[in-house]
Amino acid sequence: MNLLLLEDGDFVAADRVRLDGRRLKHLHEVHRAEAGDSLRVGRLNGPMGQGRLLSLTREAAELQVELDQAPPAKLPLTLLLALPRPKMLRRVLQTVSAMGVPRLILLNSYRVEKSFWQTPFLAPEAIREQLILGLEQARDSVLPEVLIEQRFKPFVEDRLPPLAAGSLGLVGHPGPYPDCPRAVAGPVTLAIGPEGGWIPYEVDKLQQAGLQPVQLGARILRVETAVSALLARLF
Amino acid sequence: MNLLLLEDGDFVAADRVRLDGRRLKHLHEVHRAEAGDSLRVGRLNGPMGQGRLLSLTREAAELQVELDQAPPAKLPLTLLLALPRPKMLRRVLQTVSAMGVPRLILLNSYRVEKSFWQTPFLAPEAIREQLILGLEQARDSVLPEVLIEQRFKPFVEDRLPPLAAGSLGLVGHPGPYPDCPRAVAGPVTLAIGPEGGWIPYEVDKLQQAGLQPVQLGARILRVETAVSALLARLF
Repeated sequence: MNLLLLEDGDFVAADRVRLDGRRLKHLHEVHRAEAGDSLRVGRLNGPMGQGRLLSLTREAAELQVELDQAPPAKLPLTLLLALPRPKMLRRVLQTVSAMGVPRLILLNSYRVEKSFWQTPFLAPEAIREQLILGLEQARDSVLPEVLIEQRFKPFVEDRLPPLAAGSLGLVGHPGPYPDCPRAVAGPVTLAIGPEGGWIPYEVDKLQQAGLQPVQLGARILRVETAVSALLARLF
Repeated sequence: MNLLLLEDGDFVAADRVRLDGRRLKHLHEVHRAEAGDSLRVGRLNGPMGQGRLLSLTREAAELQVELDQAPPAKLPLTLLLALPRPKMLRRVLQTVSAMGVPRLILLNSYRVEKSFWQTPFLAPEAIREQLILGLEQARDSVLPEVLIEQRFKPFVEDRLPPLAAGSLGLVGHPGPYPDCPRAVAGPVTLAIGPEGGWIPYEVDKLQQAGLQPVQLGARILRVETAVSALLARLF
């Protein structure tokens, strides 16, 4: 936790918060914090700054906070991701949040196992929990938007074209395609497939929606690695 | 498993292997393979090619193999990594192996907890197991070399300068440093710090050994994410 994230309910005054639960435990066990310590803080979906620990007991921590800094810029990106398997989903949500993706769309694909859609990790609270871990890691205070699209065809035919309009549209896909471009200027819409890749029908459909296939080399990467590698290459 | 890796002990003839254990289980449960199927195979530290399943029972699988392809090229890189916490170490070993790093040096640093050096995941067999998972993921057959340097100062003073000579030496470190370069030509020696970063003394020492600090932006990334992002940026 490189940033202590504060929620509206934590505020007991305009410049004072009271924390318990997971963050209190973290202050005790990881930060080994003491009254008087200064910590980086951020208000969820708001500004960031410094907090001074006024008191710290087993029951609660109280901090005085000054929130005078803007959160770091997000990437100019909409990321489409074929729904990963549940364990990978949690890690990918953290990675996406930490790397500054402002909008993630979890999409169905032929090679996404149907059971993946049943995971409790897709519940809004479970998604939010992982996104917050990513924000705390990277020192960002603004939650990404996560959309869930369980039907590939209507999404790609109807909603994707306007969504991708005016952006550089790309599909990460192994094969005889151009290299993923580097250091692009302007907004990007990037689609990353499931383990095993998109099927040809899906690549065709994504191309019709304005997304061009690009590749990262012969090596097949896990989804989480592919996400961080493609974003580092693009931006 | 996108590649079935064969070891010397698997060969019952020059072009025939017999498998049991983990790989047999995988053929049954994940590939749902049947006699006659063709699979990508590679000989550990040797060539890659195709295998045809001659027979598949609960006890063993027999394949006829043709190994006529070179493994994919490695990156021209020596990666120095402050020893990550044990759970992260396992994932990082897979990532490093999957991305084609030929040589990894696990190094001590002030912010590496002493207990991390006691983990059973540092045993040679445990390291090898994770590296093999990475090779199977990425379709590569050549194990990276992993060196363990438990004393920072003698390594960085004495062994690092000749090792880094003739390469572009870089230290990934958040701060007011130049951006990590993109698409470099030629060999690189890259050092990535622990959670919490290198301490200033360590950055100084690494600089004296010829490694210049570069950064990836304000966001603090987990080690695994930083590794894949830095490699995708550099190569």
